Amino acid sequence: MAGGGGGDEVRSGAVRATLAEVAEAAEVSISTVSKVLNGRPGVSDERRAHIERLLQEQGYNRRTATQATMSLIDVLVFEIDSTWAVELIAGVERIAREHGLGVVVSGTLDRTQADPRWLDAVLGRRPVGVLLIGVQLPEAPRGVLQSRQIPVVTIDQGGHARPTEHSVGSADWTGALHATRHLLGLGHRRIGIITGPDDMIASVARLSGFRAALEGAGVELPADYLRRGEFHHRDGLEQGTALLQLPEPPTAIFASNDLQALGVYEAARSLGIRIPEDLSVVGYDDLKAASWVAPALTTIRVPLAEMAEQATRLLVRLRDEPGFAVSHIDLATSLVVRGSTAPPRD
Amino acid sequence: MAGGGGGDEVRSGAVRATLAEVAEAAEVSISTVSKVLNGRPGVSDERRAHIERLLQEQGYNRRTATQATMSLIDVLVFEIDSTWAVELIAGVERIAREHGLGVVVSGTLDRTQADPRWLDAVLGRRPVGVLLIGVQLPEAPRGVLQSRQIPVVTIDQGGHARPTEHSVGSADWTGALHATRHLLGLGHRRIGIITGPDDMIASVARLSGFRAALEGAGVELPADYLRRGEFHHRDGLEQGTALLQLPEPPTAIFASNDLQALGVYEAARSLGIRIPEDLSVVGYDDLKAASWVAPALTTIRVPLAEMAEQATRLLVRLRDEPGFAVSHIDLATSLVVRGSTAPPRD
Repeated sequence: MAGGGGGDEVRSGAVRATLAEVAEAAEVSISTVSKVLNGRPGVSDERRAHIERLLQEQGYNRRTATQATMSLIDVLVFEIDSTWAVELIAGVERIAREHGLGVVVSGTLDRTQADPRWLDAVLGRRPVGVLLIGVQLPEAPRGVLQSRQIPVVTIDQGGHARPTEHSVGSADWTGALHATRHLLGLGHRRIGIITGPDDMIASVARLSGFRAALEGAGVELPADYLRRGEFHHRDGLEQGTALLQLPEPPTAIFASNDLQALGVYEAARSLGIRIPEDLSVVGYDDLKAASWVAPALTTIRVPLAEMAEQATRLLVRLRDEPGFAVSHIDLATSLVVRGSTAPPRD
Repeated sequence: MAGGGGGDEVRSGAVRATLAEVAEAAEVSISTVSKVLNGRPGVSDERRAHIERLLQEQGYNRRTATQATMSLIDVLVFEIDSTWAVELIAGVERIAREHGLGVVVSGTLDRTQADPRWLDAVLGRRPVGVLLIGVQLPEAPRGVLQSRQIPVVTIDQGGHARPTEHSVGSADWTGALHATRHLLGLGHRRIGIITGPDDMIASVARLSGFRAALEGAGVELPADYLRRGEFHHRDGLEQGTALLQLPEPPTAIFASNDLQALGVYEAARSLGIRIPEDLSVVGYDDLKAASWVAPALTTIRVPLAEMAEQATRLLVRLRDEPGFAVSHIDLATSLVVRGSTAPPRD
């Protein structure tokens, strides 16, 4: 686990000298000092405190410690404080820990660019691999990572999935198809949609699945029933308000994520429209909050924890088998029916 | 920024040799190869692709790169997927990035212990410092970190704040006092509380502030109006249901965090009790969801982003001034009045 190169012996030598000095001053063996340094048992509390004090006095510090090979995964996350991102980060952290890997988390507010300082930092850290959550890297930094043999796995809700890149996603098209068929099955014919950003493949796939379900049922989508937004609460509020104020408003709204759906809830409340009596709402993701709101939200469950796990395991595999064939994994989504959907009144 | 010790020259030499070989094969200068490696402009796309291919063929990889000094902060987080934790992590990441520091995030489900492998990994990474979020480390790992001169800052909602440790918190006692005075000011006299865990100082301080407000107003706290829980939605649901089913239920409930308060919402809904007409509810934290629920939640705003910033800045300061005096910072909380509180009916 040493850091490679000829420098380790020199540094180890310096470390041993320091440890020997401390051991001599404390009148204990070097192995006792080592126990204290590494928090192992077998040293009395009093002696431990004494040795710790001596280590500090003698300037034993990290700069002289043997440098272990870093075992890190670098994760770049779009909108790191989103509820969606945190469920993915938690999943990555858990699997990485199982493999003895640390997780370095960096945030970005730009979905299509990497801060050059981020790339420099990653090259300095030389991680096992890079995981992109909701971010699409341009060619230049991709080329740099590739030339350093740092593999990249994308959790693909962010960018354009490319045939040459490893990615893990979920069945967005199928999920949206099921959500819309659920509304059609309840008898809805006037169904609006709030989409996510056009440049995110997950948004495009969800809109496409929505359209396919309508077409399969012979139901028209009026132009003003299609509203574009970001994946935020405020987009659900704004676009939901616009939909509900149309001369002939929809009886059901498919929101492209749960945060938008909660925004639609607020739009309906402020207009005195009841869910599900007057309006059915379907979300997407199944965040925890989806089951806490009233009425509880009917939504498509995206297996965020499993996606994070698969992506992390793929990085580990790429470390062990650098030539592993490019793979794209799509995990299944499922419809969770709760209280926000019902047959239309008319 | 070199990694210290005598090894850098050896490794730099090896790197230069590889770069020279690639430069020769590509018939370009070493500086052009370096540009490609570091993603800098000034190389045509075609030539860049060619050089990247050669770098891969010649086995240029991270193990031979110059090892930069690692500039990391290690963050250990209790319940990493909680909404509360993510707002803190986002704040830490932002300030760390400003200082060119990477953030390694580790999760734990035990509030009072560190996984020994976590400590080993931290020692291997030799971070600038350790930040504890909602976690209390035992003496042994603290001693180890201290002997390695790795400073520790606690965001103190987790543990017992100790006089010898750096920490950043918020005014829990005052916040609870204000929340309770708000309920008293509306005319409530039957006020219940759901607390957090007994071993978390934030819980104890909030209960204490609650009691102080009641005592100041000469209002009794019946024993069955005090319910203990964890900081989860389900505790609000369970304990809220218990409170509301008492022979003489409270007209107001102070929940010790927002998740509990949302659980109380669900308890009230399932019992047909209206908020705020039949029951006032106050939460604590002011998570984003607090303003999304109906009615929007009256709560105490904890400045999570500012706490994260202060804690991160303190770590940076401790790196630059290792002898910096032990400090504890408490940031102000504030009452946010929304729709979940109103005068009692009787």
